[in-house]
Amino acid sequence: MAAIQRKIIPVILSGGTGTRLWPLSRARRPKQMLELTGDETMLKATAMRVADPRMYAAPLVVAGTAQAEAIEAELGEAIGALILEPAPRNTAPAIALAALAADRGDVLLVLPSDHWIRDVAGFQAAVAKGRPFAEDGWIVTFGMKPDRAETGYGYIERGEALADGVYAGVRFVEKPDAAAAERYVAGRRHDWNGGIFLLKAGVLLDALAAHAPDMFEAAGAAMRGQRRERRRVHPDGAAFRASPAQSIDYAVMEKAERIAVVPASLGWSDVGSWAALYDAAEKDEAGNAAGGDMLAIDSAGCLIRSEGPLVAAIGVEDLVIVATADAVLVVPRGDSQRVKEAVEALKAQGRDALL
Amino acid sequence: MAAIQRKIIPVILSGGTGTRLWPLSRARRPKQMLELTGDETMLKATAMRVADPRMYAAPLVVAGTAQAEAIEAELGEAIGALILEPAPRNTAPAIALAALAADRGDVLLVLPSDHWIRDVAGFQAAVAKGRPFAEDGWIVTFGMKPDRAETGYGYIERGEALADGVYAGVRFVEKPDAAAAERYVAGRRHDWNGGIFLLKAGVLLDALAAHAPDMFEAAGAAMRGQRRERRRVHPDGAAFRASPAQSIDYAVMEKAERIAVVPASLGWSDVGSWAALYDAAEKDEAGNAAGGDMLAIDSAGCLIRSEGPLVAAIGVEDLVIVATADAVLVVPRGDSQRVKEAVEALKAQGRDALL
Repeated sequence: MAAIQRKIIPVILSGGTGTRLWPLSRARRPKQMLELTGDETMLKATAMRVADPRMYAAPLVVAGTAQAEAIEAELGEAIGALILEPAPRNTAPAIALAALAADRGDVLLVLPSDHWIRDVAGFQAAVAKGRPFAEDGWIVTFGMKPDRAETGYGYIERGEALADGVYAGVRFVEKPDAAAAERYVAGRRHDWNGGIFLLKAGVLLDALAAHAPDMFEAAGAAMRGQRRERRRVHPDGAAFRASPAQSIDYAVMEKAERIAVVPASLGWSDVGSWAALYDAAEKDEAGNAAGGDMLAIDSAGCLIRSEGPLVAAIGVEDLVIVATADAVLVVPRGDSQRVKEAVEALKAQGRDALL
Repeated sequence: MAAIQRKIIPVILSGGTGTRLWPLSRARRPKQMLELTGDETMLKATAMRVADPRMYAAPLVVAGTAQAEAIEAELGEAIGALILEPAPRNTAPAIALAALAADRGDVLLVLPSDHWIRDVAGFQAAVAKGRPFAEDGWIVTFGMKPDRAETGYGYIERGEALADGVYAGVRFVEKPDAAAAERYVAGRRHDWNGGIFLLKAGVLLDALAAHAPDMFEAAGAAMRGQRRERRRVHPDGAAFRASPAQSIDYAVMEKAERIAVVPASLGWSDVGSWAALYDAAEKDEAGNAAGGDMLAIDSAGCLIRSEGPLVAAIGVEDLVIVATADAVLVVPRGDSQRVKEAVEALKAQGRDALL
């Protein structure tokens, strides 16, 4: 059969509201709206990665209502539909809405909007490799080769080879302890779960119906009650709020059969901390990663960014220094996840303008 | 004789334009205009130290023309006269102008406006102790007891006792090398020269005539050509510019005879660096000295000040972090004098708005 292949429909998840990159990321400007790894926002970079019209249809973007205008300003005419979650319910219900907006036979490429991929050609090759399996009803995941025993990520264990560079997925493990993470990296049978999935809409919906029937019902009712406003899709709020809040890993991946893994070394990062951004960033000779108005004198190994005041760092090492017009963070690079302690303290003080 | 003693005339020197406390101190807002050690500016604190009308007349303030309005706004009616230097010529010509504005028999108390004194009662006691010697024609200096081998200060060597707690001054040494400073502190015959002097106007003028005749002539001509504008005194510019620029230490103290030293432990600091301000400041239990909108989490030994953005410091030690609306400085406390490298770099880049 030489039927013309249908285009893959990208599903871009833009619902995140992380605080791990405070003070740059804020409630009103989440991580995907920041120009963290280049000259465009991570959302835009995600959309550009799937912009080839020979391979991809216009993306379905799923986001919170508060982000609608910012996303349209950023992506404009490139958006196929903008599905606005009436309330945050984690990734599984968000993907369910997109699957319901597509045809059952469409192949969806689910993409977090706030991850970074250095090797875009490798990414396209991995998608092409996984595609026949997705067409055949597999849930295709992409295994990012781990370069350290990271405990903040999920891992996928590879089983038997299904084809050249494609394996059966045996098990998902969310955020292992340090000892397990060490074993995984040493054993070379585990990859990081980058949260990118390729699968048919119908396969996802069937898996939800089987493993998360309440969610399947809620998402279905929400989309049946949808209101459209040009490219914006407003699912019914009451129906959607009835859905349990679950990640796609928990709701589907850990329970589904016919999981395939395409291992890929894409220079992937979830940019989930200032340290992760430092790792992904270009550095100068002294190992400083810089952005904005800054002056590093005899300093090394620092991440220095400013969106406001000039930052002058003199004689310091391995610090994260991030400045905006209203807040400045200084923390050792190795402790950069502790930024959440500052965010919590500001929350406790009711300083919402800074959050 | 029970003649009524004339009041001491304070001479407050406010001509400094240091950059050592950048980014707080700026060309337009020198150190004495900052609220560094309390709720008032250092200039105001200096004036308040000599505000007792039973002992002191209204002060003569000597400053650059650019500072006139700021000084009047700060000190208001408390100013006796505001002598505006047509150009900066260091401390000796500035003090000469004040001496010429007084009567030869007046006792002047010369005070830098940007130094900090913790023990104000001790300061008054030291002035009272030195006063009879000043009345008798001595140049009275105040020796600050050194608590470290500081190479950034001048030292005075004490000689024979002239009275209880008053000594002959043998020698001035400006900024010794480290070995000499160590010897001075160990030998206990040297004190820091705090730049505070008590002396008759006529004694100063005679010393200038003897040791710095060009300066004496220039200052005299400048005051003869003065223009008055309410409490402002404008010495003649062309005449004053003809004066050599010299410090009072170099022009007079190192050459004069009849120098007396009143040793005093006043908790004195010239606040000449962020480290010096840290030493002088109140600290919390973790040894952090803080000012403005800041949040210190698990941090110790830091000086953290903000006049603008919130500063969040997490897990850092012994850092100076200073933020204003347009600039942020991060430097180890022990290297805080290196701020001048940032200032020089900004000068080289022509970024005058930040200086």
